[in-house]
Amino acid sequence: MKTSEKTLNDLFLEVLKDTYSAEKQVLRALGKISKAADSEKLAVALDTHRTETEGQIERLQQVFEMVGKPARGRPCEAISGILEEANEIAQEFKGSEALDAGLIAAQQAVEHYEITRYGTLKSWAEELGLIEAVPLLAQTLEEEKKTDQILTELARERVNEEAADASVDQ
Amino acid sequence: MKTSEKTLNDLFLEVLKDTYSAEKQVLRALGKISKAADSEKLAVALDTHRTETEGQIERLQQVFEMVGKPARGRPCEAISGILEEANEIAQEFKGSEALDAGLIAAQQAVEHYEITRYGTLKSWAEELGLIEAVPLLAQTLEEEKKTDQILTELARERVNEEAADASVDQ
Repeated sequence: MKTSEKTLNDLFLEVLKDTYSAEKQVLRALGKISKAADSEKLAVALDTHRTETEGQIERLQQVFEMVGKPARGRPCEAISGILEEANEIAQEFKGSEALDAGLIAAQQAVEHYEITRYGTLKSWAEELGLIEAVPLLAQTLEEEKKTDQILTELARERVNEEAADASVDQ
Repeated sequence: MKTSEKTLNDLFLEVLKDTYSAEKQVLRALGKISKAADSEKLAVALDTHRTETEGQIERLQQVFEMVGKPARGRPCEAISGILEEANEIAQEFKGSEALDAGLIAAQQAVEHYEITRYGTLKSWAEELGLIEAVPLLAQTLEEEKKTDQILTELARERVNEEAADASVDQ
């Protein structure tokens, strides 16, 4: 027996608000992380994702419209924690050889949080018959996965370059 | 020019401490989430993962030993935030039809955080030549990915069962 009238529609809205707040926090953080990066390539990748994030926020606003609710955030403690850790790593490893490795790892934690959130929202949108919301959520999900892959590739390139530098030094 | 002497070894240790603290927090939370679950299958899956998590903590302790450092946590703000959100959803949707959907989504956010952390630690262990640590980290990474998949399947089953119930009700 159900003792609460809350439905999957309510849950969808709560997670939508959480994700909206998360994206806005990520947008503010990305400029800072990009400026901190040592490698030009990493900075460019983060700036590109910053522009992408603006589009993702607009898509979320469209989903709010589709469900007839105002676009409003709900404080996202998860992303606050992830970004706080990113900031700590940036401070602690500033000026060190490991800075970019730390920044890439921190940004990948952000991407993974977004991947799980958009995966969930997309499934629920399908279940709830929000057929216009599904492709919007799917598009952002693919962008987040692609960004995660680009970061993995940049991490690998960094390792290869360091190995090449080390062999020149010998 | 590098202005800090910090190395990838230091970064590896910081993220190892962060992950150790995260796993211990997850271990405490899993019992609570399992008790909150409506579905017996979900409760069993969470209990199974709780036992798995104990093994994962032991593996991390082995990695600390390999790098000659005491097994010590570093407060993990990210997992604190993720678990806080899980707790809020559990409270808000208690007694509702959407409770399990919310608990599954919350636990998938936990798994994704762990997936990104173990992926990073495994790559760095390879780069640092910590060859004995690599299979331990890889084993946990696979367990986290499998748990995420099991949760996705449970979410799908839930949808199918509700659809079946709805057609019986008609």
